[in-house]
Amino acid sequence: TMRSTHMFSICLPSLLPADHSATVRGLQSIFQEQEMTETVHDTEGHGYLATFIGKNGRFAILRVHSHGLVTFDLQCCEGDDITQVDNLLNALEKKLKALLHGNVQRVKRLPALQRGAEVDRYWPTADGRLVEYDIDEVVYDKDSAYQNIKILHSQQFGNILILNGDVNLAESDLPYTQAIMGSGRECYAGKEVLILGGGDGGILCEAVKLKPKMITMLVIDGCRKHMRKTCGNVLDNLKGDCYEVLVEDCVPVLKKFVEEGRTFDYVINDLTAVPISTAPEEESTWEFLRLILDLSIKVLRSSGKYFTQGNCVNLTEALGEYEELLGKLSCKVDFSKEVVCVPSYLELWVFYTIWKK
Amino acid sequence: TMRSTHMFSICLPSLLPADHSATVRGLQSIFQEQEMTETVHDTEGHGYLATFIGKNGRFAILRVHSHGLVTFDLQCCEGDDITQVDNLLNALEKKLKALLHGNVQRVKRLPALQRGAEVDRYWPTADGRLVEYDIDEVVYDKDSAYQNIKILHSQQFGNILILNGDVNLAESDLPYTQAIMGSGRECYAGKEVLILGGGDGGILCEAVKLKPKMITMLVIDGCRKHMRKTCGNVLDNLKGDCYEVLVEDCVPVLKKFVEEGRTFDYVINDLTAVPISTAPEEESTWEFLRLILDLSIKVLRSSGKYFTQGNCVNLTEALGEYEELLGKLSCKVDFSKEVVCVPSYLELWVFYTIWKK
Repeated sequence: TMRSTHMFSICLPSLLPADHSATVRGLQSIFQEQEMTETVHDTEGHGYLATFIGKNGRFAILRVHSHGLVTFDLQCCEGDDITQVDNLLNALEKKLKALLHGNVQRVKRLPALQRGAEVDRYWPTADGRLVEYDIDEVVYDKDSAYQNIKILHSQQFGNILILNGDVNLAESDLPYTQAIMGSGRECYAGKEVLILGGGDGGILCEAVKLKPKMITMLVIDGCRKHMRKTCGNVLDNLKGDCYEVLVEDCVPVLKKFVEEGRTFDYVINDLTAVPISTAPEEESTWEFLRLILDLSIKVLRSSGKYFTQGNCVNLTEALGEYEELLGKLSCKVDFSKEVVCVPSYLELWVFYTIWKK
Repeated sequence: TMRSTHMFSICLPSLLPADHSATVRGLQSIFQEQEMTETVHDTEGHGYLATFIGKNGRFAILRVHSHGLVTFDLQCCEGDDITQVDNLLNALEKKLKALLHGNVQRVKRLPALQRGAEVDRYWPTADGRLVEYDIDEVVYDKDSAYQNIKILHSQQFGNILILNGDVNLAESDLPYTQAIMGSGRECYAGKEVLILGGGDGGILCEAVKLKPKMITMLVIDGCRKHMRKTCGNVLDNLKGDCYEVLVEDCVPVLKKFVEEGRTFDYVINDLTAVPISTAPEEESTWEFLRLILDLSIKVLRSSGKYFTQGNCVNLTEALGEYEELLGKLSCKVDFSKEVVCVPSYLELWVFYTIWKK
């Protein structure tokens, strides 16, 4: 069973208004065969537009735009027969090509969109593109006191952690964890490390392997159960030989560290990405980011390094804003950045390394 | 200007038929404000369905399905005002939430689909998922004697080579080239190498750096001009110190090599992926694949290795078929496989290493 929308677009080099009616008349036999009833809508000169309603609530929208574009959408309801639907689409495409005497530049038939399915497969990228994931199961879906936490299973990426609708990390995404730890260029042995966020356990799991002196991790939500390939068993205990996980709000703890004069060799901020937009409604996120950045630099040793994610490489404006911010800190810093392919993101991601001048 | 379709779906825990009319009446004021004219369609018991036509050919489809799903699609025409469209969608979402007294499980608003744009951004994955690329320019689009060759520019991936509608390689995709050369585990120095296909020049460009004795490449179409980050200048000359590019059909040349008893240390087959389906209409592609595989193994030294791509990791049936085929060759072979993230593919890809037992 499905509720789906099937779409295709056909581009023609040109189409005179006179051709509309011939094309449309030619298609009518197909809809008649399907026992679909036509309604023609008055577009006030914006091309031809007809809808067709059929059995099982099947509904089609056919438009012949001026300047040579034909679009066809077919909405199917739960219980509609997939083979029948495919046959209808095939017949329509074939007939249209015949009617237009092969005078077709491009036919584009998109994979069907699933509507209102229990398992939501559409999780747009940070730069706003529509992408469909191969998600087949909702593993976990709860609201914590801080955010909505979803864990969805992808056939190829394993379990994917989605926080407030943003793809956060999948079990396939070791490259994310490696990048936010400095891409293998750092020596963690004997070092003191502070991890902010990282509730998936990936950073902690990789960092303990590198024999640091002590890792302190500040996190509000954890997901030790469903991201085992990412966190291993490291989150099963909040305290280990060389690590301690504090399930607490970052800001007061960081402030306390500053007061106590506590410092770290590495600070890894995995709390949030750089906000996508610089619009006023994002101001509170920028404010939070500035606060965390400021406190983090205060607890960073002069020889230390601060690692954090940026955002999608395409969001040049937001990333530029962040880099400008780095130039304005009371403590002078330098930075480098790296573009990394994180498998489940379906877009290239920027990571920053920041150090005191 | 744009021709676009905006879609959203709203899931409700449940919705009694009696609620339909109240919900619909509540929304009518929004459409009236927009001077859109309503047509109600008879669904014969498959929920409520109305269409609304407005200025500039704007057209909306509102459905209230039984079992708690509301879908809304808005088709906009060239020249429609994006801000106005956004306002309409925002107003509708707000009103619906109010009418349903917050009794909403999930609201999903998808990024708008562009229809019939000059630059096509939708290139489905091998496993049939809908994905939108950040493509902003058509760099090249021609039919060769063998295939349609497109080179499209992606903001993040650089130029993307698309052959017969399949994403083949982008300038970001060094991981593809590395994987099909054995992921850095092989020593090419002093070796004789045969490359089949690889018209983008990526494999040749990387291989010449490794000081092989001789590389022979058989290719039908090349793209030395638009994939410079991939091929460097290696395709500017068809003959170099340690390589020769033969622009010829693979099969007769391979047959000639077999007759002459010519052999290679490495054969890299970059001609085609494993066919997506095992359906009869794909039989000719399987036939070609078997022929190339057979000839390749014949020209492979007993200590040699044969590298090739499989397909998307999700296509387990087609990959299984290929592996079964490997077990049935007249010359006994063994194989290993590796799953690699190729940045522009937006899906994980399988690569094979094959050697004689």
